[in-house]
Amino acid sequence: MTPQHTDQSSARTAGATTETPTADTATRATTAAPPTDAATQRKQAFLQCERSLNGHPTQTLRAELLALAESVGADEQPDRYGEGALIEDFEREIAALLGKEAAVFMPSGTMAQQIALRIWSERSGRRTVAFHPTCHLELHERKGYERLHGLHATLVGDADRLITLDDLRATPEPLAALLLELPQREIGGQLPEWDALVEQTAWARSHGAAAHMDGARLWEAAPYYGRDYAEIASLFESVYVSFYKGIGAITGAALAGTAEFVAEARIWQRRHGGNLFHLYPYVLSARAGLRERLPRFASYHTRAVEIAAALAQVEGVILKPNPPQTHMAHVYLRGAPDALLEASAELAREQRVALFTWLRPAPVPGYAMFELNIGDSAAAFTPDEIAGYFTRVIERAASSR
Amino acid sequence: MTPQHTDQSSARTAGATTETPTADTATRATTAAPPTDAATQRKQAFLQCERSLNGHPTQTLRAELLALAESVGADEQPDRYGEGALIEDFEREIAALLGKEAAVFMPSGTMAQQIALRIWSERSGRRTVAFHPTCHLELHERKGYERLHGLHATLVGDADRLITLDDLRATPEPLAALLLELPQREIGGQLPEWDALVEQTAWARSHGAAAHMDGARLWEAAPYYGRDYAEIASLFESVYVSFYKGIGAITGAALAGTAEFVAEARIWQRRHGGNLFHLYPYVLSARAGLRERLPRFASYHTRAVEIAAALAQVEGVILKPNPPQTHMAHVYLRGAPDALLEASAELAREQRVALFTWLRPAPVPGYAMFELNIGDSAAAFTPDEIAGYFTRVIERAASSR
Repeated sequence: MTPQHTDQSSARTAGATTETPTADTATRATTAAPPTDAATQRKQAFLQCERSLNGHPTQTLRAELLALAESVGADEQPDRYGEGALIEDFEREIAALLGKEAAVFMPSGTMAQQIALRIWSERSGRRTVAFHPTCHLELHERKGYERLHGLHATLVGDADRLITLDDLRATPEPLAALLLELPQREIGGQLPEWDALVEQTAWARSHGAAAHMDGARLWEAAPYYGRDYAEIASLFESVYVSFYKGIGAITGAALAGTAEFVAEARIWQRRHGGNLFHLYPYVLSARAGLRERLPRFASYHTRAVEIAAALAQVEGVILKPNPPQTHMAHVYLRGAPDALLEASAELAREQRVALFTWLRPAPVPGYAMFELNIGDSAAAFTPDEIAGYFTRVIERAASSR
Repeated sequence: MTPQHTDQSSARTAGATTETPTADTATRATTAAPPTDAATQRKQAFLQCERSLNGHPTQTLRAELLALAESVGADEQPDRYGEGALIEDFEREIAALLGKEAAVFMPSGTMAQQIALRIWSERSGRRTVAFHPTCHLELHERKGYERLHGLHATLVGDADRLITLDDLRATPEPLAALLLELPQREIGGQLPEWDALVEQTAWARSHGAAAHMDGARLWEAAPYYGRDYAEIASLFESVYVSFYKGIGAITGAALAGTAEFVAEARIWQRRHGGNLFHLYPYVLSARAGLRERLPRFASYHTRAVEIAAALAQVEGVILKPNPPQTHMAHVYLRGAPDALLEASAELAREQRVALFTWLRPAPVPGYAMFELNIGDSAAAFTPDEIAGYFTRVIERAASSR
């Protein structure tokens, strides 16, 4: 564990940057949009931190690649256009974990999920898919589902709460697929109760639509349900999982389902330009990350709950949801975004601690917000210590006005 | 340089597998389609070779990653969703090399080229694109251009020769773009003469169509023209280049054009799912490969011409084209494919030399064919030595009948 912290400004390597705004929102999300001297100095301060609240500890790029080399078996051969034991064995491992017949490794979730929805569209003869208003496909993919695949989206329910069965009942169009994101990231990582999940996926099937899981953070969602991945995945016809978020891999995703579904997905992967000559850097890091971190996700959830409980006692801090249902929560801080971020940078300079390295204005005036995400890094703090740091930052930001 | 040879059966790493059949033709192209004991034994024999005629020498997967780690500057930071100095500096380097305003690094040429054609389609309001019947988009991409982008292809000219101006004149439909592949891989890497290239790209422009270069092997094509990359690229509005073939990178491609074109391409890259969280393993290996091998492409061409001249003297060997215009040629061998491949494996066992590790039946009965591709590996032989080995293989195959 190298003494570097883990948040957006540093962006040292995979683990460093989990759960920060995606690229096309990051710029406008950060309060200091055009780089200023103050922004550069803040970034520098965060880079030199020894501890970070969020994500996983990071290594230098070189150390990351050396570790990857170390993880390779002496006789292991590279994959080749998606073939070879290295990638095929890992795909089988993921399929087994998810209780599906097959899985295919893909460069990105953007690719995997569009492909899943297109397949369900081709099979059903329907072009409409349903998902939450904050779905990744709607917010971060430049409407690839429409511009590449000719699909239409029905946005279900309200942006600031989970989908309900009543929302689905109010969706009269014939659907190719219902996409459910577990957890719903953009509202603090909320999860539907198990019974609701069963009902909603059953509703989809009874209406001739496939249930597709956006499981970008499925690893983080499972502890709340107290069920294994396969049981959760059994409610869905297709499942996408990610390897570069909680798992901490360089990049990479998988799409799982029946063998027939996955065979079809491979054809679409080629069409997308995702059947790469070699995917081994991503596969190797996903494999290593999975083995290292899969056993830890329950502890991330536990720790997130403990930290949230301590933070909820701090004057001027609000959490959504509270208690967290996964490893994450939205943290609202009372104060001016610029002053709060500067106060966080001052803490970084004084204590070499990075609490948060970006903020965006909250919908409620007078509050700013960041996404708390608990990984390996948080183990370097006690909850009370964290609460103390937040108290300091909020007080300092208030006094700087 | 580790003592391993470089061809399809070994597939040790990037350089090992340059210029072998693409994945969706490889299986049916190899004479022994279902793995047999003989096929396994042949593969083993090729794997243990100390010298190979084709491609570049290979390393173990671990050594490849260690070399990658060594190439990283101590202060270098990972790219993040396509941003950061590491990837942006490399993109600028490629743009400068090609004399274009901008370039974008992409995971694959399949992605890059579909995107280029879609952009020209959106700009022209035309849905038809023109290319050679053996174009990669037509043969190897499962018609992604049509299924993802709604484009239609007009195949220009005949599959077994280069496109001519008369072929273009016989294409009356309004075109969004004309794609020219330099060199035309599937006919042995043939190149149009410079004047023809100038005429054809001018024809495209005069008909309101963009000229797009499939420069998967542009590095290998330039020596024939005796012109720099930028001068060749100046005939085209957009240029795709690859890094994992002659350059020997793990994977990767770039698309170059005006700044506006490239900005648009980045949006489509996101839609395709190619705006990956990290691309650094590919960027780093492309950067290292480019620095190492860019100065050598003229020598690959010279050596290919020398080897072809020696091979042309061997009874039962025919080359297309002869002399080679690039680093490659199609080599037709008289004999039964199975017997020839087995004779090559016997040579591998006796001499630890891999001449060719796959064959496919030639259109002319009684001949089999493979793709000669000259990289660093061929330096381990004299042309006469190569001719001698081919004589032995053909005689042995003939006597085994």
